[in-house]
Amino acid sequence: MTSAAASEARSVPLPGGFHAHVANVGIKDTSLDFAIIAADRPCRSAAVFTRSRFSGPSVVVSRQHAADGVLQAIVVVSKNANVATGAVGTANAQELTERVGEIAGCPAGDVLVASTGVIGRPYPMDRIRAHLDALSQPLGEQDAVAVATAMMTTDTHPKVASAKVTTDSGQTANIVGIAKGVGMIEPDMATMLAFVLTDAEVPLMDLRSGFHDVVDRSFNSLSIDTDTSTSDTAAVMASGVAGEVDAHDFMVALQAVCTDLTRQLAIDGEGATKLLEVEVTGARDDDQAKRVAKAVVNSPLVKTAVHGADPNWGRVAMAVGKCSDDSDIEPARTRISFGGTEVYPTGGDSPDLAELEKYLAGDEVHIGVDLGISAGHWIVYGCDLSDGYVRINADYTT
Amino acid sequence: MTSAAASEARSVPLPGGFHAHVANVGIKDTSLDFAIIAADRPCRSAAVFTRSRFSGPSVVVSRQHAADGVLQAIVVVSKNANVATGAVGTANAQELTERVGEIAGCPAGDVLVASTGVIGRPYPMDRIRAHLDALSQPLGEQDAVAVATAMMTTDTHPKVASAKVTTDSGQTANIVGIAKGVGMIEPDMATMLAFVLTDAEVPLMDLRSGFHDVVDRSFNSLSIDTDTSTSDTAAVMASGVAGEVDAHDFMVALQAVCTDLTRQLAIDGEGATKLLEVEVTGARDDDQAKRVAKAVVNSPLVKTAVHGADPNWGRVAMAVGKCSDDSDIEPARTRISFGGTEVYPTGGDSPDLAELEKYLAGDEVHIGVDLGISAGHWIVYGCDLSDGYVRINADYTT
Repeated sequence: MTSAAASEARSVPLPGGFHAHVANVGIKDTSLDFAIIAADRPCRSAAVFTRSRFSGPSVVVSRQHAADGVLQAIVVVSKNANVATGAVGTANAQELTERVGEIAGCPAGDVLVASTGVIGRPYPMDRIRAHLDALSQPLGEQDAVAVATAMMTTDTHPKVASAKVTTDSGQTANIVGIAKGVGMIEPDMATMLAFVLTDAEVPLMDLRSGFHDVVDRSFNSLSIDTDTSTSDTAAVMASGVAGEVDAHDFMVALQAVCTDLTRQLAIDGEGATKLLEVEVTGARDDDQAKRVAKAVVNSPLVKTAVHGADPNWGRVAMAVGKCSDDSDIEPARTRISFGGTEVYPTGGDSPDLAELEKYLAGDEVHIGVDLGISAGHWIVYGCDLSDGYVRINADYTT
Repeated sequence: MTSAAASEARSVPLPGGFHAHVANVGIKDTSLDFAIIAADRPCRSAAVFTRSRFSGPSVVVSRQHAADGVLQAIVVVSKNANVATGAVGTANAQELTERVGEIAGCPAGDVLVASTGVIGRPYPMDRIRAHLDALSQPLGEQDAVAVATAMMTTDTHPKVASAKVTTDSGQTANIVGIAKGVGMIEPDMATMLAFVLTDAEVPLMDLRSGFHDVVDRSFNSLSIDTDTSTSDTAAVMASGVAGEVDAHDFMVALQAVCTDLTRQLAIDGEGATKLLEVEVTGARDDDQAKRVAKAVVNSPLVKTAVHGADPNWGRVAMAVGKCSDDSDIEPARTRISFGGTEVYPTGGDSPDLAELEKYLAGDEVHIGVDLGISAGHWIVYGCDLSDGYVRINADYTT
């Protein structure tokens, strides 16, 4: 595992068998807004998508293309979501997969297309076509950080994480994840854009079921602002060129990469000044733990208290209490902690308020809730709510 | 109906058969923080309460006392919620109902107690007892605005609404509603504190079922910040001294009073600069209409767009799309409007952006969503999300 180091690195090479291309095609301004990731051969793949009823044609087309478990290329357009663009939007998404398939040497059906940005405006297809016409082969970009940069909208920095797994023959396989997303983040089935590439060889069934579990404990446990994007897409592609790996080892490493990306997304949430991690233990089951943790991490009053470094455990209790259908939640057996220091129930030695305020003023805040029922456990990731969030989203013009 | 006028008035007399008392008992500072409302005789009553699992002893005790449909007095302590205060909190709530019952000349079981304010701190019972010991009879306050003022925490002004109904004998019966609440407002079964007093005579069954319906279309359709209070209480008391009224006429007037109070609560939401009204039509049924309307009114991205006077209909579409379990919601038959001006679907004559921005800069913003499915209809009430909300809640100290 080298994820922590990788997320700080300036350059992270793509795994074996992958190449990329990044460019500005003039979607909105002169910053990078276009990326292609292509594998040398068809890859075993798994993908999950937003459940939004207003999901865009990128999601609709990609869901079809990913269904057979084989992908060879990904094309990403940033700064334009291609959502609510009608029939022309669907035609444009299909044309993109056809053109990129020609470049990658695969059928359009093996190309995933992803978009993120403004809603309700068609792509500038003339500029995209001209760019693709002039594109030389093979794709020359090998740095995952460049791809992550080309995917950014209001992200303040590119998000990349990586890990290594030893193959059955003693070689090293790499897992590299890239992601973007800062707002409109309350993933349901999937989240924002996140792509994980690996040169490990993993059986398709393991990749599919494992990726769903991993996404559930990472991207689906992230909430910036309770708003679910119309464009959420997460996919993993395994080129297999490094050889076979132990499935369990691979899933542990995949979870580490996706959790690392999730934390990077949370801390870069719109207006965020700190990471908020809410861990619920002692729940009836994992589902209840997740439900309660989400109620806490999504509470505007908890988020503003964390922003103000205020150890206001009453707001955490209030948020737990919102899970009103969970009749087995009882104040009498609930325990609440900030950074491991128990603040509820009260009585006995009072916690040191000044120490708690100092802790809450830090870059990462952990809120623990133990329901005292059984062994259900979940961790969710979010951020504080600042006036910066309001400014960013009140001033963003259509 | 005189509700609009009443909400502006400086003084609104209580209906016949009711008296009140307001005071400062030193809960937090020197502002009014204590109120008693007492009827001359037992009143037919209905009440609804928060569903929070962390509801305080005021709610627990009051739920028992209201169960038989008879109440004669209400005591309100503001600036202290008496929540998460353990056994002493329960004993204090019971003692309050006993002492106020003695003053009102009724059993403790006919007294409703309500609290709002900081969580986790016991009442200063010594000061409350000393105040009640010195209280002279009868209660001398007759102004509903004074009672509403004594209930305020961070409310910027008292909320009162009233209406008149003609009795069967041609006399006039009055309905007077008072409410408080600015944050931690996403009512579930009930909401913040809201009391409606009337001298009309109404059968208990009508009062109970009617009040639940009215609350559902008013207080339960209000959301300031998605956070559900531990203290929400809404109750209606009918003294009957003005005589019998037509049940339907009474319910129409009661709905008007409660909707007026709901709008007053929304516009005074923490940091709010404007009222946001979201109306969903053409839904499969009223439940779906309410669910979609809540998704829109609670979306931080919609709320910030309204704050910034940005006609960003893409965010409204996104919020509608979040109702992912409603598989009959289709972008192709959905219509979105701002102040009656259709903005989606696009195509045809584009709406005048400058006009829309001017409309959104006003004090009241109406967002319409027609789902094009059937005749389900609901209106919800909320407010914009401003940096003021963040400042109020990040700086509020425990």
